[in-house]
Amino acid sequence: MSEKNLVISIDAMGGDNSPKVVIEGLSLAHQRNPNIRFLVYGDKAKVDAEIAKYPALKEVCEVFHTAEFVHNEDKPSHVIRNRATSMYQAIEAVKLGKSQAVVSAGNTGALMAISKMVLKTIQKIHRPAIVSIMPHEKGRYVMLDLGANTECDGINLAEFALMGNIYAKCAFNMEKPRVALLNIGAEEMKGKDEIHAAAHILKSAHLNLNFIGNIEPHEIPKGKADVIVSDGFSGNIYLKTVEGTCHLVMHMIKSSIKDSWLAKLGLPFMLGAISKLKKKSDPRLYNGAMFVGLNGLSVKSHGGTDGLGFSVAVENAAKLVENDFVDSIRRELENIDLDEISQEAYYEVY
Amino acid sequence: MSEKNLVISIDAMGGDNSPKVVIEGLSLAHQRNPNIRFLVYGDKAKVDAEIAKYPALKEVCEVFHTAEFVHNEDKPSHVIRNRATSMYQAIEAVKLGKSQAVVSAGNTGALMAISKMVLKTIQKIHRPAIVSIMPHEKGRYVMLDLGANTECDGINLAEFALMGNIYAKCAFNMEKPRVALLNIGAEEMKGKDEIHAAAHILKSAHLNLNFIGNIEPHEIPKGKADVIVSDGFSGNIYLKTVEGTCHLVMHMIKSSIKDSWLAKLGLPFMLGAISKLKKKSDPRLYNGAMFVGLNGLSVKSHGGTDGLGFSVAVENAAKLVENDFVDSIRRELENIDLDEISQEAYYEVY
Repeated sequence: MSEKNLVISIDAMGGDNSPKVVIEGLSLAHQRNPNIRFLVYGDKAKVDAEIAKYPALKEVCEVFHTAEFVHNEDKPSHVIRNRATSMYQAIEAVKLGKSQAVVSAGNTGALMAISKMVLKTIQKIHRPAIVSIMPHEKGRYVMLDLGANTECDGINLAEFALMGNIYAKCAFNMEKPRVALLNIGAEEMKGKDEIHAAAHILKSAHLNLNFIGNIEPHEIPKGKADVIVSDGFSGNIYLKTVEGTCHLVMHMIKSSIKDSWLAKLGLPFMLGAISKLKKKSDPRLYNGAMFVGLNGLSVKSHGGTDGLGFSVAVENAAKLVENDFVDSIRRELENIDLDEISQEAYYEVY
Repeated sequence: MSEKNLVISIDAMGGDNSPKVVIEGLSLAHQRNPNIRFLVYGDKAKVDAEIAKYPALKEVCEVFHTAEFVHNEDKPSHVIRNRATSMYQAIEAVKLGKSQAVVSAGNTGALMAISKMVLKTIQKIHRPAIVSIMPHEKGRYVMLDLGANTECDGINLAEFALMGNIYAKCAFNMEKPRVALLNIGAEEMKGKDEIHAAAHILKSAHLNLNFIGNIEPHEIPKGKADVIVSDGFSGNIYLKTVEGTCHLVMHMIKSSIKDSWLAKLGLPFMLGAISKLKKKSDPRLYNGAMFVGLNGLSVKSHGGTDGLGFSVAVENAAKLVENDFVDSIRRELENIDLDEISQEAYYEVY
């Protein structure tokens, strides 16, 4: 990472086993990125006690006491009214320009609601989206929306595509990411109206996108696209189906091995390969779903992750801050009027 | 199987390597189910030549020559006008009462279009759906719609649930299948309006269903439901994501083993377990997506399957015919007015 002054605010009280896991994550992130400074919000006594375990980390942390924190069962409508929580304070730090991104392992709905209310949506963006990085056979891809918007129109999807494109550029240092729409067929006329509408917009020369059309879910692992765009319902179905299927396959493999004494005998030979496989498919390496489209970065770490997972979420945030992700979206949108392009596309087709 | 007189009509010309694979499939199905008779439609010379390889099969096959067949690239709007194809003739046999089900490995869109036009939708069913059987950790489940209906309302989803329920009863000999709606959250208010509407209908005591609410995709492999109901877009995304993820996991495992000489050394110990795993997860054992909601059964075998796969599709069809699947749907709907239940549910809620 560069020598740029990076400040990230941290909700120390979110997720299982906080603030222990959170501070452990900061320590790991600090070891690899000594130039990041942290504003840490939470129960000061507990947080200080954890930070004390990592003397080097202390130098780059400023701790702010908050008397309250968001609980897992709190409703978004409730939490947005309580400015005293560690989550609210950490998000507000971004708004006040004290930090450039916020990371929390707390309640997703609460994080989205407060982030949206405090940071506000970037001008010209209609709807923020949840984006994450996922693995394919040859590398990684960016996918959005993973659940923020159950129903979307063509312009929403086109905005997700633009943001995902910039995200991939920033996260993968890529020139021309291949952008595709998640669909149930490769042919243009397959799927839903909003996907057709988005395709017409994304083909516009004004956008200068490397738009490659539709992608079906079974083609994604082959690495055919770098950015995959979907409504939040289908995206969430996709994400959770990947999770469930991984478990099912591993379950089937384990039970096949368990049923065979010969296979059990061969297991010791496999340990190296298994550990390598675990490393490659480690979900902690893909931790940190980002809420994009806001004036500032808001990152959700998995609530059940450990220090390594939390550090990855922090580094994801840092990388996007370094590459001016939010400003890039603003600049990109300055000269683009998606509503107008959408109208033009409409007249071309009908 | 029982001694009931089962007749299934077969499109011998669909799929890769037809009619060879098709006839091989019939021979395998015949060995296990000698009571099924087949009406085989296709190029008589070629079909007869294949049947000649299986003397026992000849006894239960009647071959009808058709000069034409549906090609993979044919448009549904085109094929529904050509009665001379093997696919059309095989479907029409069901309509004429000569057979009780049709199986084809040909063009899916064509099979759906002709089946719908010729067999017609069961009275009171608004939309037919595609259903298939899939594996979970502890057994199998039924899922629909897998792609026939991109957009659905609450009543459509409720109809799918009723049909899926009867399907599971017939296919699994199950008394009270657990029926769930595919959704992005377990809570009632999650997801889309049509899912909420369907949930209100399915809770109605009139239906006497074992409705268990929403299910998220990552919970499906745990075996928490026997029937999973979805619109055709999300169902197709689910199906293809499962397929893609299985490939990705297997790819990662293979490449981890390839990179380790020790693991390669251990491979011989694993062969038994691997072959058992392959057997358990063999997609051929789940072949045969059914188009349900019509006056007759129309079954789509995978175009690329082999004889074993085709025989499974045939046996699936036979099992549902034996258990009076189509008539059960008719009987179930006789005393049910989903529109009325939907209205009642609406008033209860609002």
